[in-house]
Amino acid sequence: MPVITTVEPGYHRVKLARVLSDSTHGSMDAFDLLTVCVRDADGAEGIGYSTAGHNGAAAYATLVQEIAPIMVGADAELIEAQWRRIWWALHSGGHGGPTMLALSAFDIALWDLKAKRAGLPLWKLLGGYDPRVPFYAGGIDLELPLDALLRQTDDNLGKGFRAIKMKVGRARLREDIERVAAMRNHLGDDFPLMVDANMIWTADIAIQAARAFAPYDLVWLEEPIPPDDVAGHVRVMREGGVPVAAGENLYTLGEFRHLIASGGVSYPEPDITRCGGVTAFLKIAHLAEAFGLPVTSHGAHDLTVHLLAAVPNRSYLEAHGFNLDRYIVDPLRIIDGNAVAPDRPGHGIMFNWKELDRLQA
Amino acid sequence: MPVITTVEPGYHRVKLARVLSDSTHGSMDAFDLLTVCVRDADGAEGIGYSTAGHNGAAAYATLVQEIAPIMVGADAELIEAQWRRIWWALHSGGHGGPTMLALSAFDIALWDLKAKRAGLPLWKLLGGYDPRVPFYAGGIDLELPLDALLRQTDDNLGKGFRAIKMKVGRARLREDIERVAAMRNHLGDDFPLMVDANMIWTADIAIQAARAFAPYDLVWLEEPIPPDDVAGHVRVMREGGVPVAAGENLYTLGEFRHLIASGGVSYPEPDITRCGGVTAFLKIAHLAEAFGLPVTSHGAHDLTVHLLAAVPNRSYLEAHGFNLDRYIVDPLRIIDGNAVAPDRPGHGIMFNWKELDRLQA
Repeated sequence: MPVITTVEPGYHRVKLARVLSDSTHGSMDAFDLLTVCVRDADGAEGIGYSTAGHNGAAAYATLVQEIAPIMVGADAELIEAQWRRIWWALHSGGHGGPTMLALSAFDIALWDLKAKRAGLPLWKLLGGYDPRVPFYAGGIDLELPLDALLRQTDDNLGKGFRAIKMKVGRARLREDIERVAAMRNHLGDDFPLMVDANMIWTADIAIQAARAFAPYDLVWLEEPIPPDDVAGHVRVMREGGVPVAAGENLYTLGEFRHLIASGGVSYPEPDITRCGGVTAFLKIAHLAEAFGLPVTSHGAHDLTVHLLAAVPNRSYLEAHGFNLDRYIVDPLRIIDGNAVAPDRPGHGIMFNWKELDRLQA
Repeated sequence: MPVITTVEPGYHRVKLARVLSDSTHGSMDAFDLLTVCVRDADGAEGIGYSTAGHNGAAAYATLVQEIAPIMVGADAELIEAQWRRIWWALHSGGHGGPTMLALSAFDIALWDLKAKRAGLPLWKLLGGYDPRVPFYAGGIDLELPLDALLRQTDDNLGKGFRAIKMKVGRARLREDIERVAAMRNHLGDDFPLMVDANMIWTADIAIQAARAFAPYDLVWLEEPIPPDDVAGHVRVMREGGVPVAAGENLYTLGEFRHLIASGGVSYPEPDITRCGGVTAFLKIAHLAEAFGLPVTSHGAHDLTVHLLAAVPNRSYLEAHGFNLDRYIVDPLRIIDGNAVAPDRPGHGIMFNWKELDRLQA
């Protein structure tokens, strides 16, 4: 019987190998990792997780105080029903933000459980399209001097990446342009190159930047402006002349619908640990398909590879900078520039709990 | 010197005098109260609070783990600077939901502190328009039988209210129509009557309901559909023929801008404890004025009276159902159907801490 018997949240503070920085979030030397382990009456187990630069304590409190008590005794197979129950139970206490980190982690655990019970890898359970997903290196490198940026790029090429993203949004646009030009020169024509501004600009500056980047043939310009300025996204799309990726800071299907239906994005990029888990990511991917758009991703590549392997409109999978791989048994590998969704039942992520338990926050 | 020396969060679970119910949130017998007390180097003190039906633990964790450590040592007078610092510091861990409950409570405490230091009541500090604000009784009465609804109404009239809101969204629309008709008949022509559907309908059903309510001359129809369906709000406005109030479940200025600029609302109703505190409420009120709209409120009437007393486009203040007044020294009173913003420095709310401390969650 797939009745949920235990919901076990965990909260860890994971140190980064090196300090990361972008245009908006300042420097970051660690991140919060929320885990949740769901067991059913048959002893089957599902694992979910989400990550946050800060404020993991709030998501952890939601898992412990709200989601676990409501969900013990619930039917693990009725994921849509449980998702909606949690959504409305917590709605009046804030239906976005950390609440969604908690709901996402829990939803991921339920899908893992379901796929394991079915004996299927998650990407096949969700539809099954192609296990090989183009994988790109998402550099968090705004403050790197140019020579270090190029060395990091060579390192990523050496690892097998065949697409690379760099940060923009430095104090002067001229610096961004010089760095993008140097990267294009270094990588050669046709190599897929993206840039990410982490919401630092206004629409007008973003349009100016997009036009200045035009000679360098970018796949996309990511998060040029803050996520709540949908009208601004529409302007950047129309006037900038470069495809726009956005969505890592959206927390609901409704927000994606608004951005997509308004024509404010070329590459929606939901974060599976923020947008509401597998349940919501799949809907966003399908919504994008209905609007003729590819879908890409943010963060949690070992989970998201299953979503992008499941749908026909998948674009690149982001290899995210957090070095969580250290704590995962048999982490995702790159083959011919692709990530390959594993064929183990569930999402196939096995944490090294002994190592993680030493990082309890 | 207005340097912040201590930030003291509190977390209380407050029992309600009677179980409340509406169309979406089910029944509720208690709520979470978050308090925050900020002191500066001169010994001045500001108090803020926010409330949540559930998940107060997450907002409390945000106050304790994130906001307090960042803000000790910060300049209490630079509220816009501190607001933005907290917003971006917590953005990647979820920029809506419980994060905003915590930020709102903290922001309210800073404004209280500033007004006290200036020796001004908050409503004068914020602009000063008229301390008398039309006050309405927000009934939480969906499940009350009709006779009990009318008795509650008489009770509210006896308390001095000259405007009343009732819940709609029962299983059958026919029941709602009968109850609204009975209330209009009971109250007489011209008595200000509002209805609140708590997001239960789709846009089409809301339009059908609005048209059915047309003979009963409502001031507004509140939250006919979920908050993220802005296009649906626009349809209800255009096709329903009844003014729409909405906003208690919006958490950012950007969300209000979207709803207002799209023409999806007649009466924006921010909740000061959710939308980002005094700082954000004032901007939303000003945004509404720029669009020629009145502004109303949700919850926390003892705080919000200051905002609505400060701006010229204020509409009704909601008297919210939570019986927090029991824990407040000298709570807001009603005179000739108006709430009157107090002339004490700050917001003037003094909690009975001894009573509250017995409710620690």
